[in-house]
Amino acid sequence: MKEEESLSIAGVPVFIDADSTSLFDALKALERIGSIHLICDTNTSTDCMPLLPYLAQITKEPIILPVGEQYKNLETCQGVWRSLAQQGANRNSTVVNLGGGVVTDLGGFCAATYMRGISFMHIPTTVLGMCDAALGGKHGVDFEGLKNYIGVIEQPKLIWIHTPFLLTLPLRHFQSGLAEIVKHALIGDPLLFQLLHGNINFRTFNKEFLTRAIQVKKHFVENDIQDHKMRAALNFGHTFGHAIESYFLHTDTPLLHGECVALGMIAEIWLSHVHLGEPTREVCRKITALIRKCTPVDVPGKIKLRALMPYLSMDKKQHAGATRYSLIKGIGHPVIDQEVHYATLEKLLQDDEVALFLPWLLR
Amino acid sequence: MKEEESLSIAGVPVFIDADSTSLFDALKALERIGSIHLICDTNTSTDCMPLLPYLAQITKEPIILPVGEQYKNLETCQGVWRSLAQQGANRNSTVVNLGGGVVTDLGGFCAATYMRGISFMHIPTTVLGMCDAALGGKHGVDFEGLKNYIGVIEQPKLIWIHTPFLLTLPLRHFQSGLAEIVKHALIGDPLLFQLLHGNINFRTFNKEFLTRAIQVKKHFVENDIQDHKMRAALNFGHTFGHAIESYFLHTDTPLLHGECVALGMIAEIWLSHVHLGEPTREVCRKITALIRKCTPVDVPGKIKLRALMPYLSMDKKQHAGATRYSLIKGIGHPVIDQEVHYATLEKLLQDDEVALFLPWLLR
Repeated sequence: MKEEESLSIAGVPVFIDADSTSLFDALKALERIGSIHLICDTNTSTDCMPLLPYLAQITKEPIILPVGEQYKNLETCQGVWRSLAQQGANRNSTVVNLGGGVVTDLGGFCAATYMRGISFMHIPTTVLGMCDAALGGKHGVDFEGLKNYIGVIEQPKLIWIHTPFLLTLPLRHFQSGLAEIVKHALIGDPLLFQLLHGNINFRTFNKEFLTRAIQVKKHFVENDIQDHKMRAALNFGHTFGHAIESYFLHTDTPLLHGECVALGMIAEIWLSHVHLGEPTREVCRKITALIRKCTPVDVPGKIKLRALMPYLSMDKKQHAGATRYSLIKGIGHPVIDQEVHYATLEKLLQDDEVALFLPWLLR
Repeated sequence: MKEEESLSIAGVPVFIDADSTSLFDALKALERIGSIHLICDTNTSTDCMPLLPYLAQITKEPIILPVGEQYKNLETCQGVWRSLAQQGANRNSTVVNLGGGVVTDLGGFCAATYMRGISFMHIPTTVLGMCDAALGGKHGVDFEGLKNYIGVIEQPKLIWIHTPFLLTLPLRHFQSGLAEIVKHALIGDPLLFQLLHGNINFRTFNKEFLTRAIQVKKHFVENDIQDHKMRAALNFGHTFGHAIESYFLHTDTPLLHGECVALGMIAEIWLSHVHLGEPTREVCRKITALIRKCTPVDVPGKIKLRALMPYLSMDKKQHAGATRYSLIKGIGHPVIDQEVHYATLEKLLQDDEVALFLPWLLR
């Protein structure tokens, strides 16, 4: 426990299941400097706030966001900024973000731009938030259908992880988050991959998975805070993943972020095989099986490759007109900046075995 | 010239009337990395772009903003972000901001948040831009009537000052900008104050004024990049100034930013006298006279102090409910964090001599 408590990412202390007095003390110290403002969503305000009763005592009236990636936009930001101004937040105030990736992404961006930046901390409440979204300082919102196009890189003061929140999650959301843990195993921790492979009862969440996944994130973030190089390895599965997410975002059946990453990783592990010649089919099958076991996805329709292309080419990872992917040559061996042309994607879908694993993607 | 060319603020090179090949070379080097996007306004696109003809050759189609502080808002930002996306700007691209404070404030904010931040440079075209707004990394926009409420502190790659642009300015805008030069003299350069005092032909702009004013800005910025302490001295005149600006912003007769700062400085120099007992009336009169000579303002109406209070209390410099001012005890002697209560403002306006200099502000 002691060791976990002393974890830090990019200089930011990360507490994992620490005694709640440590959070209380930190908030009390911040309260002496200025007001504390809570951003959450309709789920976390009812499911998570009761687990930390003193949060409501120490913070202003919660600023409650609607649930869902479709609200991660500038309109929601304007509501947050307005609430902060109405509550009298000033440059000495602190924002506490209590929620999953949407809340921490958007809440962190709002805090980092309110009065040119006030301090903030994250209390992630989902698997994805705890192992990925809340860590590393990337914050922002979607803009006119473009994923995370408007944002900043700014570190929170503190990240407080409380795994009992995970028990409040519906199974589908829990499984969605596991996709990011699998991703971290694939890009940086072969042993974590083995551990996940041997464990089928994911509902009894093994904290070791989380801690190992966080260590992988720490490694890539700290070697490239400003995201100009190897940090891109964390985007494995995200080029296809973001495209699928954008494609379904404004339909009646949007997918969860982790679900899209799961689909994206399956596409990109086979793309790695086709484009790089590695990993072997055998390894690709093994990875695909684990992803499908961790994060089953019910894709609400079939997509033609051509229809997905506009979303793929607008991905932030594009460079000089060509779409760039972060792929993996094998478990624990990421390769970034892989330029992939349309012809290669067509070739991917001509492979009968691949087509079996990507039934939602049509040539 | 050499010395001026090597000036830097917070590590950012500032070129003053350097050979235009230095800008051309910098742009050429950036163009090899990614696309270059130009943000200007309807004035600078017609008046300033022809003076730097190669700018148009090297940049994408200019993104042209409407002129005026009333457009320094999120709606205009959305237009800029949309244009950048449509022009294919990516993380290797650079934004060039050509204009006054509105263009550099807003353009810098848009660049610093586009794809979580791409590089940008400023080419200020106004007195205010050259001696203040474009320097120091503060960027942002107004939000629902609140001045500069949404923004970031992020440094440009380069600041390129070309004083011939000043000849394109209408006299009113030129005089408005002089207010910030006077402000810099008042907070940090008694000799500059003397030089301004002895010079009445402001139209033949003395470059020494500009260089000295920039040095004052450099001093306060570099000692407090994140704006947590002495940088606040640069806000002298700005608490009242921003309130007046906000008050008239959405009327038919908005004032220019520098004009409001001029009015604000007159209010705050006398407030210094009333609140701190310094400077003497004699010095206050001398300062008031110089401000009025440099920046004559035709105030479009009278304001009751009570009507100005909501704007004063929403200023970002507020702290724990009370309005805080950056005042001066004498020329070159700023004092920050001065908490001033309503009663003191009433006392200020009860002074017959003060009332003479602030005829637009009623008890």
